Amino acid sequence: MAARPPMTVTVLGLEALEAAARPATVLDTVRAALIAHTEGRTTVPAPLHLDFPEAEGDCHVKAGWITGADDFVVKIISGFYRNPDRGLPTNHGLVCVVSAHTGEVRAVLDDRGRLTAWRTAAAGALVTHAMSRADADTVGVFGTGEQARLQVEWLGMLRPLTRVLVHGRTPAKAAALCDWLGERGYAARPASAGEAAGADIVITTTPATAPVLDAAAVRPGAHVTGVGADMPHKNELPADLFRRAETIVTDDHAQCLHHGDYGHAVRAGAVAEHADTAAGAVLAGPVRRSATAVTVADLTGVGALDAALASALINSAP
Amino acid sequence: MAARPPMTVTVLGLEALEAAARPATVLDTVRAALIAHTEGRTTVPAPLHLDFPEAEGDCHVKAGWITGADDFVVKIISGFYRNPDRGLPTNHGLVCVVSAHTGEVRAVLDDRGRLTAWRTAAAGALVTHAMSRADADTVGVFGTGEQARLQVEWLGMLRPLTRVLVHGRTPAKAAALCDWLGERGYAARPASAGEAAGADIVITTTPATAPVLDAAAVRPGAHVTGVGADMPHKNELPADLFRRAETIVTDDHAQCLHHGDYGHAVRAGAVAEHADTAAGAVLAGPVRRSATAVTVADLTGVGALDAALASALINSAP
Repeated sequence: MAARPPMTVTVLGLEALEAAARPATVLDTVRAALIAHTEGRTTVPAPLHLDFPEAEGDCHVKAGWITGADDFVVKIISGFYRNPDRGLPTNHGLVCVVSAHTGEVRAVLDDRGRLTAWRTAAAGALVTHAMSRADADTVGVFGTGEQARLQVEWLGMLRPLTRVLVHGRTPAKAAALCDWLGERGYAARPASAGEAAGADIVITTTPATAPVLDAAAVRPGAHVTGVGADMPHKNELPADLFRRAETIVTDDHAQCLHHGDYGHAVRAGAVAEHADTAAGAVLAGPVRRSATAVTVADLTGVGALDAALASALINSAP
Repeated sequence: MAARPPMTVTVLGLEALEAAARPATVLDTVRAALIAHTEGRTTVPAPLHLDFPEAEGDCHVKAGWITGADDFVVKIISGFYRNPDRGLPTNHGLVCVVSAHTGEVRAVLDDRGRLTAWRTAAAGALVTHAMSRADADTVGVFGTGEQARLQVEWLGMLRPLTRVLVHGRTPAKAAALCDWLGERGYAARPASAGEAAGADIVITTTPATAPVLDAAAVRPGAHVTGVGADMPHKNELPADLFRRAETIVTDDHAQCLHHGDYGHAVRAGAVAEHADTAAGAVLAGPVRRSATAVTVADLTGVGALDAALASALINSAP
């Protein structure tokens, strides 16, 4: 046993993380991690799970490592579904960053779910940008929550967007998101589902359990990215859209089959089980797409990205 | 989503935990948790595991809940076996205490492995005290490390000990432990394996892979507790001792079969596979033992005890 004096573990709160999460850092990290994931250079063990039926709660513990990276991550995420009744958020958790060289806990990130939001936004923006026509500059967004905002904001860092059409079930929320985007220089307005689906770039960010757009409303040359599906019963994109697609991108083949929109399309017989291209392959480039083709990306979230991002953030934290 | 301001998670370091870990608190908590474990009132999901072969390291994430308790615990433990070469401890980790009502992280315990040491000491002392003859007051200890010290110290809180015989492979370490015990009022001296095995109470605390004592050296009326075995290849107590035993106590039947001394004895054909009594049953009492019988306890460590102890400590932390 070494005689090193005990030190208390470093905790990074939201403020420090937000300061560290410069878009360039997050985008570069997520791009490299998606490529590593596609190339099989990630270690993601089976998660640990606890259920609290009386409290309508559960807890998942997930771990991830980009093989060979300096750190790995253990992420605790709880969901307690009666919390809103008592004025508490449904989800809580934290992220522990551990050295893959010594096992020392380098930091605990009290991120309030922001890491997952950032890596989801970055993965969506990167894949959407890579798959969309070079001249595509109108965006239709389905959903008015955090990911609707982030997907537009982060995509807007990668290419100019001249118009944003926001479709939400609640008009006031769609208007509020348009105001927020307007303040940041985007020409944004609330739109019908048909209008939003007719944009050059379509992004769905909803918890829908039935498709939110009509495949026929998507125009030739458009690209559609769905980021909302994270459970088998969720479904934003219609099977017919996958049938029309020239290219189908998934961030994780098995996961998208299991609980993504892609899985719904495969089970509906619209596409074959191995019709997809890995997001990491698209990001490693080059991307070939014909000018009139429809392309689709189904992103369900890759856990190893958390490891890469958490490690990058603690290394660049002030 | 509630509009509660973000707060940073509470970290309790070693100093706060040591202040909170009053022996009465730890002993009461561990007793209740062992009884709950025996009665099936614990939830212990399959652990999550990561391997780092190039660094000779691994990481286990374990969770535990005493069913119905206010908190559950997620414990991260890493072991990097080349760390001592660079002057670092082999093991690192931390313990996260999470509300079983809301999923909120109540605290992160930066305990440097102390919780495990305390619950191991408390479980050993409680079971040893319960199983030993009322007039047993000499103790033979095998091993000179932290558990050798703690097992004597905590047993000494439960009953008077007139003499302590310390057997270690390294004479200087045995002498140092005797000095430490002497300063605390115990009549302690280094001893041969035969002398230590001949005490009223025998406690083995070693990482041995072959029995450290001769069954024939254990006297009628003695009780023997082994706390060192935590892997299948470890073995402190000889099969013949289990063959002689009137009562065999295990803290977890399946675990002691898998990687305890009891498993070695069963595989050697010395005892039947269901010859054991649960530690929680012994602590719930009453204990019957004949004056001349030999009794044995094989304690391999119960994860749910961490949950109970961590929760108790954060509730009594200053």
